[in-house]
Amino acid sequence: MKNTIGNSVAVTLFGESHGEYIGAVLDGLAPGIEINPEYIAHMLTLRRPDGRISTPRKEADDFKIVSGVVENRTTGTPIAIIIPNENVKSGDYSQMRTVARPSHADYTAQCKYHGYQDSRGGGHFSGRITAALVAAGAICKYALEQKGIYIGTHIKRCGGIADSDFGDLLSDITSLNGKTFAVLEDEKGEQMRQAVLDAAAEGDSVGGVLETAIVGMPAGVGEPWFDTLESMLSHVMFSIPAVKGIEFGAGFAISDMRGSGANDPFRMENGRVVSATNNNGGINGGITNGMPIIFRTAIKPTPTIFKPQDTVDFATMTETVLQPKGRHDPAIVHRARVVQDAASALVMCDALAMRFGTDFLK
Amino acid sequence: MKNTIGNSVAVTLFGESHGEYIGAVLDGLAPGIEINPEYIAHMLTLRRPDGRISTPRKEADDFKIVSGVVENRTTGTPIAIIIPNENVKSGDYSQMRTVARPSHADYTAQCKYHGYQDSRGGGHFSGRITAALVAAGAICKYALEQKGIYIGTHIKRCGGIADSDFGDLLSDITSLNGKTFAVLEDEKGEQMRQAVLDAAAEGDSVGGVLETAIVGMPAGVGEPWFDTLESMLSHVMFSIPAVKGIEFGAGFAISDMRGSGANDPFRMENGRVVSATNNNGGINGGITNGMPIIFRTAIKPTPTIFKPQDTVDFATMTETVLQPKGRHDPAIVHRARVVQDAASALVMCDALAMRFGTDFLK
Amino acid sequence: MKNTIGNSVAVTLFGESHGEYIGAVLDGLAPGIEINPEYIAHMLTLRRPDGRISTPRKEADDFKIVSGVVENRTTGTPIAIIIPNENVKSGDYSQMRTVARPSHADYTAQCKYHGYQDSRGGGHFSGRITAALVAAGAICKYALEQKGIYIGTHIKRCGGIADSDFGDLLSDITSLNGKTFAVLEDEKGEQMRQAVLDAAAEGDSVGGVLETAIVGMPAGVGEPWFDTLESMLSHVMFSIPAVKGIEFGAGFAISDMRGSGANDPFRMENGRVVSATNNNGGINGGITNGMPIIFRTAIKPTPTIFKPQDTVDFATMTETVLQPKGRHDPAIVHRARVVQDAASALVMCDALAMRFGTDFLK
Amino acid sequence: MKNTIGNSVAVTLFGESHGEYIGAVLDGLAPGIEINPEYIAHMLTLRRPDGRISTPRKEADDFKIVSGVVENRTTGTPIAIIIPNENVKSGDYSQMRTVARPSHADYTAQCKYHGYQDSRGGGHFSGRITAALVAAGAICKYALEQKGIYIGTHIKRCGGIADSDFGDLLSDITSLNGKTFAVLEDEKGEQMRQAVLDAAAEGDSVGGVLETAIVGMPAGVGEPWFDTLESMLSHVMFSIPAVKGIEFGAGFAISDMRGSGANDPFRMENGRVVSATNNNGGINGGITNGMPIIFRTAIKPTPTIFKPQDTVDFATMTETVLQPKGRHDPAIVHRARVVQDAASALVMCDALAMRFGTDFLK
Repeated sequence: MKNTIGNSVAVTLFGESHGEYIGAVLDGLAPGIEINPEYIAHMLTLRRPDGRISTPRKEADDFKIVSGVVENRTTGTPIAIIIPNENVKSGDYSQMRTVARPSHADYTAQCKYHGYQDSRGGGHFSGRITAALVAAGAICKYALEQKGIYIGTHIKRCGGIADSDFGDLLSDITSLNGKTFAVLEDEKGEQMRQAVLDAAAEGDSVGGVLETAIVGMPAGVGEPWFDTLESMLSHVMFSIPAVKGIEFGAGFAISDMRGSGANDPFRMENGRVVSATNNNGGINGGITNGMPIIFRTAIKPTPTIFKPQDTVDFATMTETVLQPKGRHDPAIVHRARVVQDAASALVMCDALAMRFGTDFLK
Repeated sequence: MKNTIGNSVAVTLFGESHGEYIGAVLDGLAPGIEINPEYIAHMLTLRRPDGRISTPRKEADDFKIVSGVVENRTTGTPIAIIIPNENVKSGDYSQMRTVARPSHADYTAQCKYHGYQDSRGGGHFSGRITAALVAAGAICKYALEQKGIYIGTHIKRCGGIADSDFGDLLSDITSLNGKTFAVLEDEKGEQMRQAVLDAAAEGDSVGGVLETAIVGMPAGVGEPWFDTLESMLSHVMFSIPAVKGIEFGAGFAISDMRGSGANDPFRMENGRVVSATNNNGGINGGITNGMPIIFRTAIKPTPTIFKPQDTVDFATMTETVLQPKGRHDPAIVHRARVVQDAASALVMCDALAMRFGTDFLK
Repeated sequence: MKNTIGNSVAVTLFGESHGEYIGAVLDGLAPGIEINPEYIAHMLTLRRPDGRISTPRKEADDFKIVSGVVENRTTGTPIAIIIPNENVKSGDYSQMRTVARPSHADYTAQCKYHGYQDSRGGGHFSGRITAALVAAGAICKYALEQKGIYIGTHIKRCGGIADSDFGDLLSDITSLNGKTFAVLEDEKGEQMRQAVLDAAAEGDSVGGVLETAIVGMPAGVGEPWFDTLESMLSHVMFSIPAVKGIEFGAGFAISDMRGSGANDPFRMENGRVVSATNNNGGINGGITNGMPIIFRTAIKPTPTIFKPQDTVDFATMTETVLQPKGRHDPAIVHRARVVQDAASALVMCDALAMRFGTDFLK
Repeated sequence: MKNTIGNSVAVTLFGESHGEYIGAVLDGLAPGIEINPEYIAHMLTLRRPDGRISTPRKEADDFKIVSGVVENRTTGTPIAIIIPNENVKSGDYSQMRTVARPSHADYTAQCKYHGYQDSRGGGHFSGRITAALVAAGAICKYALEQKGIYIGTHIKRCGGIADSDFGDLLSDITSLNGKTFAVLEDEKGEQMRQAVLDAAAEGDSVGGVLETAIVGMPAGVGEPWFDTLESMLSHVMFSIPAVKGIEFGAGFAISDMRGSGANDPFRMENGRVVSATNNNGGINGGITNGMPIIFRTAIKPTPTIFKPQDTVDFATMTETVLQPKGRHDPAIVHRARVVQDAASALVMCDALAMRFGTDFLK
């Protein structure tokens, strides 16, 4: 617990890296929403390893929607999605069972699950589980697009290389959603990939920063005090493995500004209230103001590396040295951005349904 | 909605800046926990304006616990705390009713509450409400201390001035909890105050960064997938007005590290598993690892300033210029740190009760 | 925990029989709803003891709304209501502290709260707490009436006497809501009162059956599988002290019917789908069908009586005989019906807001 | 929404009568609990149609646990169970799509889901979904038994025939859990079956009353005000299709008693507090008192019958006559008792985990 999140639209995740299926139950979507299987498959494909810089684990991610959808329309009842785990070789992970990988969940899972956790491939803590979240979020993301709400994420920073800033958001989002390696400036993407390969060559890994834009949300959405839109978004983002920070709008940089520079002056544009700047990332007082929602997450470098590391064997409570084997990603930032998109879509659907009722998005 | 947060230990907030009372209902604390009224009063005093750099609004914050406590022990049933609003002058705020203060909740509240919101002094969006959260959190914080769990926050950065880093955490926390202006290095604190006064003199405001340490939490606490300890903490932190970012451990800086530098190697110390570094801020896979929990929040500069600002009047949907009057803080970072302590204490109590049952902390 | 109930509209209760205040926080009501203080006062008056057959404890129930309402309109933020406890004489209850009153919560509270519970007057388990629920529910009930949704409860059975059946629901509800002793046939009410007085004269108490009708709910409200309208209603009804059963429509009698007699045939009436009978109490598959919602609760006789009773002293774990002193009601059925009305109103508001969004009822 | 129920131990249901799979996700069970596949299979077998009096739909109910269990021990992470739907013939139900079966969910589902509901075989409202609940509950029920907590249900009444009363609860429960047609007195069971067959011969159906006993729960479990054990049990019971009433202990009969007869006197027995009678069904003030928990539900006769019935076609909003075809049960009471056992087990696990933490039952 808690593997369910959401108030009016909720998702429940299940599965382990090396189990038979992973999956998600998406509950609370309005009836009559169109399901686009190609769209889901596309997002799952984007989440899958990039042959050049990722682990060679290949999965077709042949998701199957087993309930809640008839003739590609939601029925309004729970949508269960299952995805088979293929290409599972448990043997690779046997050393991991009691020797804690530093900065991974091995030791903390032991403290919580007392040795009963499924440690094969990270078990329930594996990034593999995010495929189920992506499938559920893809349904939401497509539904939002039918209502003019668009979400896109780029790799703002990776291996010390910075992508350019968002420009025209709608065209940037369209562009990003078609790319395997989501950068606005492809040349920067090539440099990032090279940085990843360089780290991998040394048995090391890199992290990065992901920046998400959400365009088209109406003003007035969010449920303060406690379910501010920032609270809801950060809650789900920190559930994604490897996220160690999140900031909205100008984020940490705003803390060095003065109010006169940080405040976003309002003005009228085509009869709508807009703001001249967007240092608050589209959210005031926890409620959307109609401007684009902008946030960034800090993704830590993949903790599993191929260098020897000091650690402990928690079975014997003795110090030891870990030399990981098997398949691992030297970076996950390019895959995590799809998860961030999906998680964002879930939160938007939930916030909209809380505000406008269960039929919203129909 | 949602003005209640928490699973096993929950708090419900109510009140407006210029209403008769603000208050909190704290539910789920074990029976038999000692209540220390002086401790609560001390935290409320720390949250109150600092005469030198804050608004002159003075309130005794004469909180009253009206249920759930008998002879300074919790009964195990809901603890309701009410705090009267004194010194309320509604008149000052009349201009605010339809002219949106940039980066404040005026406009978004209008979009959500359609003109029925209490706009006097910011209403339910006022920082005033945090006094109720502080009172409830103070009860939790004191209860945690009886179990050897300590929480402290310092102003890591304000007005461009940086405080020194945490050293010995326990003694730092003790020191901070006694200070009105919570810095580790008092000289830096003086510089920060001067920066605030400088900004105030220009009718402007400043923000800052708050850093919190939580020491003594047992390993194995947190409920992934979705109720990771980071998710729970960030959820409540982004409910605090002015917070625009949060990061754990090395935070955003970890995104530029390589895995070999970011990973925290485990080792044994006095029969306990510890880590040599703490780039993950005491949390792996969303679960405590027994190391100190470290996080930082970005606090934006107070949006209400005394310079003219472009904005709109949402009653007429026309552009106008706002020249705020009344009393306002040129900085809130020194007050927000008390709120951050209180909110952290609430989350720790909730996470511990989820893990160990309703009698935990008794 | 859990002293909060509701998804989109929620209420949090606090207080003890002999504390300073009891109260409720009502969260999630739309902004702009009219508050009618006289209506609330009227419901509180109906809940208060009837001089002839109830305990002489007299309270003005001077409720105060301390947040969430401006100029008698909801703001959309939490509505906190506090009601002072007057006329509190703790001394009467001193014997109760360790000698368990049979069928009261004394012993179970001891098992849960380990002696820290407030045992004065029943503490948090006192029927007194229902005054706060009534105040919150009165706000909801009045709001529903503005939308054409009406709720009324009569004493269907008390002391072996049966009231007549519901006839024209709207006029019955109007009539009941004006009565102190809510029966459809006043002569039966007199017989019931006499039965209560007869029991009281013998130091005994009586129970009864309450029947509630809710008219005007639109079809299509309810959130199966688990938040069926029956589930939501029964959840809150079993939180009301003394309720030991609930049945919808024909209720337990339906279990002896055959399908051909139990089924409610649909037909058209003025362009609306209605049913010829209402054995299902207005709910099919957990969702409203547009017919009146009808349910009955079983109220047990007040457990505190003036006859000696065998029991145990849980401090010494020895058997003893209890001879209660102090003030107690020989029946509560006539007061509980107000609580049932209020609780029903809360559930209807929550179910409607889940279905139609936070602005519903505005 | 809401297809998830539970606080510390939660279950999420999904599926439709004629979809590919139905299933459940059981979240929050402690790690290390033994899973007994035979026990689950046995409960699923008991839930399946009885050849003599039920629909001929035959399903192997080949459940598959796809996550959360390793080597027949819970891992502490979500347990997902999927059960394939076999023997699905959609064609039989085509007439049902717009002609509402009286007292079934067809019309209300239309009002809620606007024609997008899966109407084949009742869709998400089908009793078929209870198989998933039974599988999840079977895991809980077996876990409870390892801790000395036993649950059993008998058909107290069916077709006008009454079973005998509970006697020695532990032996009665053991006996019932082995029976396909769960009565204490087999001769009464034969008479009930004959009554069902008689009704079926006339194209009609019967209902009944189910009585459940839960033995071994410790005193002090339940979370008033709102999560009383009665509230939690009734909430889930009213989610089971066909339940129209629930009563605890003496139930509705208590409303005609006087306090002196209804109260359960406490006494000591082997150092434990027990009560001489159990009119309160093991629950005082919403909290267990250590006595057996006893409750009864009213099950309505199966709404689908083979007699012509007046109804409406909601596509055309015209009156019509329905003559159902296909396969249907003339009674479900003998199957529903398994669901009631399973649902009870879920609630007990949740209440125990709220009280004693996530490791309880380990």
